[in-house]
Amino acid sequence: MYAVIMAGGSGTRFWPASRTGRPKQFLNVTGRSPLIMETCGRLASITADDHTVLILGRRHGPEVKRLFAGRPVHILLEPIGRNTAPCIGLGALYARYRGCEEAIAFLPADHFIGDEESFISALRDAASLAEKSGGLVALGIVPTKPEPGYGYIRKGKECDAGSGCTAYDVSAFVEKPDLQTAMDYVASGEFYWNAGIFVATPERILREMETHLPAFYRGLQEIEHALDGDEYETVLEEVYKRTEGFSFDYAVMEKTRSPVFVVPCDCGWSDVGSWEALYNLREEERDDQGNLSEGDVLLEGCKESFISARGERLVACLGLRNVLVVDTPDALLVADLEKSQDIRKIVNRLREKEKESVL
Amino acid sequence: MYAVIMAGGSGTRFWPASRTGRPKQFLNVTGRSPLIMETCGRLASITADDHTVLILGRRHGPEVKRLFAGRPVHILLEPIGRNTAPCIGLGALYARYRGCEEAIAFLPADHFIGDEESFISALRDAASLAEKSGGLVALGIVPTKPEPGYGYIRKGKECDAGSGCTAYDVSAFVEKPDLQTAMDYVASGEFYWNAGIFVATPERILREMETHLPAFYRGLQEIEHALDGDEYETVLEEVYKRTEGFSFDYAVMEKTRSPVFVVPCDCGWSDVGSWEALYNLREEERDDQGNLSEGDVLLEGCKESFISARGERLVACLGLRNVLVVDTPDALLVADLEKSQDIRKIVNRLREKEKESVL
Repeated sequence: MYAVIMAGGSGTRFWPASRTGRPKQFLNVTGRSPLIMETCGRLASITADDHTVLILGRRHGPEVKRLFAGRPVHILLEPIGRNTAPCIGLGALYARYRGCEEAIAFLPADHFIGDEESFISALRDAASLAEKSGGLVALGIVPTKPEPGYGYIRKGKECDAGSGCTAYDVSAFVEKPDLQTAMDYVASGEFYWNAGIFVATPERILREMETHLPAFYRGLQEIEHALDGDEYETVLEEVYKRTEGFSFDYAVMEKTRSPVFVVPCDCGWSDVGSWEALYNLREEERDDQGNLSEGDVLLEGCKESFISARGERLVACLGLRNVLVVDTPDALLVADLEKSQDIRKIVNRLREKEKESVL
Repeated sequence: MYAVIMAGGSGTRFWPASRTGRPKQFLNVTGRSPLIMETCGRLASITADDHTVLILGRRHGPEVKRLFAGRPVHILLEPIGRNTAPCIGLGALYARYRGCEEAIAFLPADHFIGDEESFISALRDAASLAEKSGGLVALGIVPTKPEPGYGYIRKGKECDAGSGCTAYDVSAFVEKPDLQTAMDYVASGEFYWNAGIFVATPERILREMETHLPAFYRGLQEIEHALDGDEYETVLEEVYKRTEGFSFDYAVMEKTRSPVFVVPCDCGWSDVGSWEALYNLREEERDDQGNLSEGDVLLEGCKESFISARGERLVACLGLRNVLVVDTPDALLVADLEKSQDIRKIVNRLREKEKESVL
């Protein structure tokens, strides 16, 4: 099975560990390996390296080539970030060009999955349904709490997916709700989190592009002619330059008249959207006072704090409660752990001050 | 007027800014200059450099010589720390040897004085009284709060000190009380903080040594014979080696049968015993949210926090309340500001772990 792994993000929610030049997908936030490596690793049972297509920004080419040195993965570098729709179109085009006719899994590179077995099982079901129906099949993450920060998928009637798998028609894709609405969603049992993970054949994707993004589809045809040729880079850049950015959910998923399904998946998923989310994920690594620490850390009378000391210095903490400390060689963050989603405020102020060296 | 400035401390209450090799008296904790420089500076109107005797540990000789380069202060290096009594004896001996017969001010090097005028005025009064009475005259700091961390001086009946100055017999020296007792002390109006600052003639000090520390007094006589000679260092070391450590308060002040007076002084004194004490002192430098920061610091939504960024790195803080951050190139402290007096727990654990490089 082909997998298109979308690693275009340049988020700064893990500042100061993440920087413009080293976004979240390249961070070893789990303590094991960088998220992009983990994303590939958990697909190993269904996707070989030479069926893996990594799509990321041009500036991150050297880093990804270093991480995957010697492995026959396919690396496509986008000249400019244009959101998910062009990225997915390019991935589908490239996979078809390489001979793929079967369902492809499209996945963000920077998510966390706790239960890999359930996840792989859902992907297999989704692939089977996508091939049988010719439609688009999203994974629907069974929500564990009302989370206003995520998009939701509302299920419709159960569909006959065959082979014993549970799947539903999609009744609606819903943008981030307010907290009360999110609570209603979760209570109803009719909503799943939209993790941005879906499965479809390349043919289906390209037909959708032709219908909903016709200008970009013509660009894809130009790129296809240039693939493996000397002009590829130039053509790719030219097409991206004249393309607007659209999210695939908005441009295709919410508008398509093709069948769209959701396969429920209860796999301990998280988009690891903040230091606090990461702290919550790594529950097993916390000490008996609820502290999570990595590096040369000395804790005295601390509770429920998260200390990431990768600045090659001793970090001593005294009497802290619910505090986040992220030490790096050139920048230090100390924050209320529960306010870690506000790091963008810090990053915005650093931009205003033109502190490029730490961005 | 001679001043003997006692800079023998090796405290670690300002770790990680203070280290064994660079204790508090060498730190620029006020944002102006190192405390030992401030202590000398505020005496400028009554004590010339060549009447200033600095006594400190041998290991800190190079640092103090660097700080006072080109200034004719007298520097005496103790081979081993033996608490305040030997230090005061040595200072008195040396001043007498240099021709001093008048009252000498003995002062710790690492205190803060907010109102220098009141302080100098009290020192002048104390000197006048010490010379007239031939006794020991302590400065009594008018307490501003019940502080269990300090020693107290209980006043007796008012004495006729002449020249319009207020002074009292000392009724008792009291060791650190519990909080309730400290509250009673302050409410009674009969107690002053013992800042360890006092005035006496060298003759009075040496007579007290002879009476209460006769073995060390014989040592002082040996040192006197060796002063300015080739054997000085050897004799000094030999005497210190065989001397026990005693505090002057304990060994002399509390036992003497000579007259002991206290001159009240309301001079914004602090022993700057913790980061929190320093935060409280530097009230005027705080921003309108009560944050005190120095260095390359970015604050977002923080209150009543103290951020000392001298590690040459950016320190960003988000949503903190009452947090202390002390950044240095090789060690970082993040603490509840109100628990900063517990830093010794951190330092003790570093000792246990033999982390000499950061001690």
